[in-house]
Amino acid sequence: MKQVLFTSLCMFFITVGFAQSKDQITVEALMAVQEAKWNEGDIDGFMQFYWHSDSLKFIGSKGITYGWQKTLDNYKKSYPNKTEMGILKFTILSNVQISENYIYVIGKWQLTKEKPVEGHFTLLWKKIKGQWLIIADHTS
Amino acid sequence: MKQVLFTSLCMFFITVGFAQSKDQITVEALMAVQEAKWNEGDIDGFMQFYWHSDSLKFIGSKGITYGWQKTLDNYKKSYPNKTEMGILKFTILSNVQISENYIYVIGKWQLTKEKPVEGHFTLLWKKIKGQWLIIADHTS
Repeated sequence: MKQVLFTSLCMFFITVGFAQSKDQITVEALMAVQEAKWNEGDIDGFMQFYWHSDSLKFIGSKGITYGWQKTLDNYKKSYPNKTEMGILKFTILSNVQISENYIYVIGKWQLTKEKPVEGHFTLLWKKIKGQWLIIADHTS
Repeated sequence: MKQVLFTSLCMFFITVGFAQSKDQITVEALMAVQEAKWNEGDIDGFMQFYWHSDSLKFIGSKGITYGWQKTLDNYKKSYPNKTEMGILKFTILSNVQISENYIYVIGKWQLTKEKPVEGHFTLLWKKIKGQWLIIADHTS
């Protein structure tokens, strides 16, 4: 009996306590696609996972930027070519499903290039019309 | 009839569309207390609104710090006295109630002192046992 209880508890923690939700797995998969797009030099492809809205918020070294188009413009200005873009690597440190439609991700980013740079990001993802999109990005 | 409908719609937008929830008002009030505590030179008082847990996450210029105690130690090290602390001012740019128990705040911080400094923050607040606490702070 004790062993059954122990096994059941283990199964509970494996499936409920530690396993990621489908949504969390999806968001991490989308971030892997973002990495791939960046590493192909495709900033437009990278940006497809950001909310295509004037209400998108991007907080970076230059302060806050409002809107998808301005965020895209800034990326293209800061990273004019593949050499400047380098090779991007995300390391996810925390991935919390806050509610059915929101996920909060903390992670580290690294750009391998002649002068490597790195930092941290916090992302607020929202499921909009069935699609997971970044609605706020704080990168430092 | 049309006027009644119009008035009802207006009332709807005033109360639902634009008004803040009690929780959002509470969080902004707590941030005003944080400002006041900081400006009294009381870092411990300022820190009372952070989750007292090893799982608290603080992302700042030095990268990520885990835990309440380490975050407090870092604050005290970076701001050893009232002169270094300066006068803190928060400007809230966005305050979104994500779910019953989570609020996401974007804002600007300014420290007025001999050499003024400023930047942005994104905060994830969580209602834990009826109390609103910061569980993740990204300040840059």
